Amino acid sequence: MSITWVEFEKLISSGNLKWKISKDDLPTPALILDLDIFDANLAKMACHLMAAGKAFRPHAKTHKTVEIAQACMDVGAIGTCTAKISEAEVFSRAGLKGLLVTTPLVGAWRIERAVLLAKSQPDTIFCADNASNVELLNQAASAAGIKLNIAIDLLVGGRTGSTPGEKSVKLAQQIHTASNLHFFGIQAFAGPCAHTLGFLERKKASEQSMGQAVETRWQIEKAGIPCPWLSGGSTGTYNIDSAIDGITEIQPGSFMFMDIDYSIIGGQADPQQFTDFGFALSVIATVFSKPSAKWAIVDAGFKAFSTDRPFPPQLRCGKVPFRWAGDEHGNLDLTQATQSIELGDRLEFLVPHCDPTVNLYDRIYGIRGSMVESVWNIAARGMIQ
Amino acid sequence: MSITWVEFEKLISSGNLKWKISKDDLPTPALILDLDIFDANLAKMACHLMAAGKAFRPHAKTHKTVEIAQACMDVGAIGTCTAKISEAEVFSRAGLKGLLVTTPLVGAWRIERAVLLAKSQPDTIFCADNASNVELLNQAASAAGIKLNIAIDLLVGGRTGSTPGEKSVKLAQQIHTASNLHFFGIQAFAGPCAHTLGFLERKKASEQSMGQAVETRWQIEKAGIPCPWLSGGSTGTYNIDSAIDGITEIQPGSFMFMDIDYSIIGGQADPQQFTDFGFALSVIATVFSKPSAKWAIVDAGFKAFSTDRPFPPQLRCGKVPFRWAGDEHGNLDLTQATQSIELGDRLEFLVPHCDPTVNLYDRIYGIRGSMVESVWNIAARGMIQ
Repeated sequence: MSITWVEFEKLISSGNLKWKISKDDLPTPALILDLDIFDANLAKMACHLMAAGKAFRPHAKTHKTVEIAQACMDVGAIGTCTAKISEAEVFSRAGLKGLLVTTPLVGAWRIERAVLLAKSQPDTIFCADNASNVELLNQAASAAGIKLNIAIDLLVGGRTGSTPGEKSVKLAQQIHTASNLHFFGIQAFAGPCAHTLGFLERKKASEQSMGQAVETRWQIEKAGIPCPWLSGGSTGTYNIDSAIDGITEIQPGSFMFMDIDYSIIGGQADPQQFTDFGFALSVIATVFSKPSAKWAIVDAGFKAFSTDRPFPPQLRCGKVPFRWAGDEHGNLDLTQATQSIELGDRLEFLVPHCDPTVNLYDRIYGIRGSMVESVWNIAARGMIQ
Repeated sequence: MSITWVEFEKLISSGNLKWKISKDDLPTPALILDLDIFDANLAKMACHLMAAGKAFRPHAKTHKTVEIAQACMDVGAIGTCTAKISEAEVFSRAGLKGLLVTTPLVGAWRIERAVLLAKSQPDTIFCADNASNVELLNQAASAAGIKLNIAIDLLVGGRTGSTPGEKSVKLAQQIHTASNLHFFGIQAFAGPCAHTLGFLERKKASEQSMGQAVETRWQIEKAGIPCPWLSGGSTGTYNIDSAIDGITEIQPGSFMFMDIDYSIIGGQADPQQFTDFGFALSVIATVFSKPSAKWAIVDAGFKAFSTDRPFPPQLRCGKVPFRWAGDEHGNLDLTQATQSIELGDRLEFLVPHCDPTVNLYDRIYGIRGSMVESVWNIAARGMIQ
């Protein structure tokens, strides 16, 4: 430990931690971001989409961090997706433009908040998937004397959205002719395709789902309504959807961090592993008890890692099986360990699923080599309303 | 909606929300606490333990909220358990006494923080489970010129701790003779017993595990070391451990909120259901999309509920199966619904596991009848270090 805890806290609150401490000093569990890998992931996605002629609007539901949204803009992103209005408010307050709220806004307060947001960031895009909601959005925009950008949330993933085809053409017509709405285009997220195992299977699934979105886009155009925008795609389908004519922008999120969940979907080169993007995100945990030669306990459990996938965290280096052992505990099975594990050891784990893991932390430490370069507040953590 | 969003935000920041709005106004997903049920749960546990002659030190890893720790003290708790030092610091800053940090403190900064905490709250109890850690704690206390209260963390639950029997007698001796440590007693958490299905099976398991702790207590006393304190127990074993001679205090947490996980362990009266405590905690979610007659989507997914159990959230009233549909989405299967579900409906869900669910939220709304009586910041949320 190069400095004391009291000195560390002072450095944190002064915002002056850069190069002062190593990642081995951080209080654990610590959420860390390998900035070299993160930069490479961002650059790779940005270059790929630029070459493919698609706009790049990464999803902030993954990172919830203003500095990361800004880093995306710095490599050419045209804006930031957020899942919820409360999340969008955080990025809007930080001055970020080009916001897209990807879920429909149902409820009086959500609509009121959308109008307030649009007043300060008029280029924000909102989504709707049904006629009654569109009517309410128009009434609110009209009362406020503004125009809201409204895209159709299209049902291509078995979750939310308006049915592709005729029904959505009608909805587009309603938005287009509403006094205070501007029909922006189509947002289509094909959730299940993102994690379809096997590149060819995924390609087939995404081309089918997103094909419906493209088809709906042309039907809307044919009805005389300009529909210049179609946003969709994910980390799993970035190099599939970017090859589909008619899609105008891609909204991936996890690629910047990566997680175990995405690593097993298989890539174009290797059917077993998806290696297009590197593991930038991990959690450092400390062995704080070793009651027996058979197991050791780390200070990271259900409150340190997402638990929504059927597999636990994985050591970044070496093989020591991790078993959940409670809210604050992880159990390392030493009977199957390929390395010695001692009390006080600090171990780095890859996370099962990045989005809900990041949502557990207040800050993320950016690491360059082994030193802490930046400390970012996860300002939209918990913003799920 | 009785007031606007802007008015709501003003009321929240002025701390003046009491009786101003109904729970049906709250932005969703909203974590709510039925205060009548909560009060009854607290009273029942406090009375039970008082009658059994056991001290009551509820675990704050469940609620992470200063006002709730205070509510426990108001009904007779002698202090507050926390899992981590960062959690304890929050309660210490709020002036709460009688803190017990239930996990061992390994690492230079954790020990430094323990010393700082003990300086401001000298009655805090810390735990240790091995000799080298005890030595480091003594060195730090000695350098600071204070005495630290150290209990042995005893291995009775297959997780952390010193092995019961001879080994722990030696550890007690080391703590007892250390210049700057005060040997406080034994902390023994038998994790697996808490959720053992069936009251009689649970009783057998807990009596066996906690029996080892009691036996170790007497062995330590026999070695001439005063060992007046033995803390353990859980919501699942509160009425088992409280009947065991030699245990001096019980440290339950979930009983105040309840969750699906505890409701299925079976009770003394009903082998299928554990009804000793009522469901005080729930999450309100809003139906924000109904793309088909077959399903509806609510605004609550992996970021609104814990996902560490093999079952999803459950509607408090009625039967509509919930299926996970992503970070921000829950899918209601309308083909099996016993009630109609419409766009904009607000639905109340019981949570699978209370502790990690509460840890996802920044505030908890206390509800009396249907009105909001209190808004509490979950001040130790995310404090896992």
